[in-house]
Amino acid sequence: MRTFSIPQIDDDCAPAIQRAIDLKTKPVGALGALEELALRIGTIQQTDTPELILPHHIVFAADHGIAAEGVSAYPQAVTNQMVQNFLQGGAAINVFCRQHGIGMTIVDAGVIGEFADAPGLVKSKIAPGTRNMLSGPAMTVEECVRAIDAGARIVDDIAARGTNIIGFGEMGIGNTSSAALLLHALTGTPLSDCVGRGTGLDDDGVARKLRVLTKAAALHAEARTPVEILAAVGGFEIAMMCGAMLAAAEHGMVLLVDGFIAGAAFLAAYRIEKAVYDYAVFCHQSDEAGHRHLLESLNAEPILKLGMRLGEGTGCALAFPLIRSSVNFLNEMASFESAGVSTSAS
Amino acid sequence: MRTFSIPQIDDDCAPAIQRAIDLKTKPVGALGALEELALRIGTIQQTDTPELILPHHIVFAADHGIAAEGVSAYPQAVTNQMVQNFLQGGAAINVFCRQHGIGMTIVDAGVIGEFADAPGLVKSKIAPGTRNMLSGPAMTVEECVRAIDAGARIVDDIAARGTNIIGFGEMGIGNTSSAALLLHALTGTPLSDCVGRGTGLDDDGVARKLRVLTKAAALHAEARTPVEILAAVGGFEIAMMCGAMLAAAEHGMVLLVDGFIAGAAFLAAYRIEKAVYDYAVFCHQSDEAGHRHLLESLNAEPILKLGMRLGEGTGCALAFPLIRSSVNFLNEMASFESAGVSTSAS
Repeated sequence: MRTFSIPQIDDDCAPAIQRAIDLKTKPVGALGALEELALRIGTIQQTDTPELILPHHIVFAADHGIAAEGVSAYPQAVTNQMVQNFLQGGAAINVFCRQHGIGMTIVDAGVIGEFADAPGLVKSKIAPGTRNMLSGPAMTVEECVRAIDAGARIVDDIAARGTNIIGFGEMGIGNTSSAALLLHALTGTPLSDCVGRGTGLDDDGVARKLRVLTKAAALHAEARTPVEILAAVGGFEIAMMCGAMLAAAEHGMVLLVDGFIAGAAFLAAYRIEKAVYDYAVFCHQSDEAGHRHLLESLNAEPILKLGMRLGEGTGCALAFPLIRSSVNFLNEMASFESAGVSTSAS
Repeated sequence: MRTFSIPQIDDDCAPAIQRAIDLKTKPVGALGALEELALRIGTIQQTDTPELILPHHIVFAADHGIAAEGVSAYPQAVTNQMVQNFLQGGAAINVFCRQHGIGMTIVDAGVIGEFADAPGLVKSKIAPGTRNMLSGPAMTVEECVRAIDAGARIVDDIAARGTNIIGFGEMGIGNTSSAALLLHALTGTPLSDCVGRGTGLDDDGVARKLRVLTKAAALHAEARTPVEILAAVGGFEIAMMCGAMLAAAEHGMVLLVDGFIAGAAFLAAYRIEKAVYDYAVFCHQSDEAGHRHLLESLNAEPILKLGMRLGEGTGCALAFPLIRSSVNFLNEMASFESAGVSTSAS
């Protein structure tokens, strides 16, 4: 596996950025979370005039062997169909990325079925779906490493074009099962707190899902390292996203982390290399049950709580204008001095 | 005072709009608050293809006699200085409106000092500041009615240009005092729950503010109607905003309501004409102490909770892209049928 060398962020510039924030024509602290964001992004970029360049969003898609156990409200074919929908511009993430001028890449990380070449599509299939993790690991460690490295290379290419802020989303029928097992294995959160309705299971469906995942967790309890755990209970799109996140931090990008599945990928990335954390902006707290526990384990406070549970990284695209606002106020607002406004001390 | 004839919204179209939402390529309900917004705006506009036309934001500014009692962390001159800042484009609300293509109008509703003519400035001064409400009503009922009617006419002009979504903000050193007294008088919320730090009072400052406002509340306890209460303890910018909100609902606009002071203006508008409620979208829950009580009294759940307390209606401009997203997903997302995606029932 590629060794990720994520630069430790130097906090020496933070006081100067905080001063620039405090001199803007507003009461100190009055822009709340936007001020924290401005400070964070300024610190990542080591400047009090940060810029967001060519924002980009990657949706990783893959199928899951565990879908055969009836853990999702939707048939497995939906993964492939939704990739077609992404390529045709008809999904929610397309709408929100278009709205905000966010470029999009769709990655076939392991979907069942083939896709014709299309603009924005990256074909990086590890295999047509993972294996059913009730009868062995979802993928081999070799496949998992291949997925992590492939995700990193996709971000390398995007970084080469100049992008310095990137969001991540996913599509994969059955992948809340992987995310629940990852959260359980990586943090010790009780499995029953990690399992939720996914795309819309009823109470009986959730009970069945919990029974299936309890078996899977027992079967793979010996997995120890983040990569072993990802291989045992993860998915190709999750492993690839994990590599993509690590590479994005390596390139000094601002990472937009949204949702339960992407959150699980981030958790794995964080266990591989802790320095990834300081590049992350948490965008939205999903309605999916386990997501709150996941965010708490990371001590993360997301920007938005809109009660969504769609995936695709929609929370990244919806939070993006607020992130841009944080940079804009820092760059564009007048200071008390430049505007001739009296301060509270006067 | 003008009689506001706000059309009762006909809910007959709501089931058809909800069906359109449910047929989009996403699990039912998966867009959370955005789905509620899409339904609300569709219902206001009586269509499942709503449009947001020429979004506009008005900032009403005025001075407050009560500022003489030391209820604010900033000197009174800041009201005038910040109006200059708005006109020069350097305030937070300018930055956020520019970002989202929201047109802006600045209204001198009663600022101390005169302004040169400037693009976007409406001169509608009732008087140079209200009177100190410790020695009588802040304004006469006649002045209050004049302010309400003036606010309504400003919105009439904006409506004539085609705007169908409008935000409201304010600037006025001392105006959290008016808002606190309005909340107290209009809802019976204990005054101590209504009084907060405003632009940044320390604990002693808040205690002094509470003492001052307790006297004011006692002095004006006999005010009964919303207009009498607005006259006794309100401000020119608040009364004008109240009229503007009522007129906006009359024109069938979507009303963006943000912040403690604008919330108090909305509360008065709601007491004058309840039908205004169905046109309102609550944008942000302020960090100012009383705002939570104000929102609870209206049973309102705002879109954003960013811990801001800046005023100017900044929450309206920051919530706007999310409101646009709600309309965009309804207009632009593929349906299960059009995208050939299987539903959960299949």
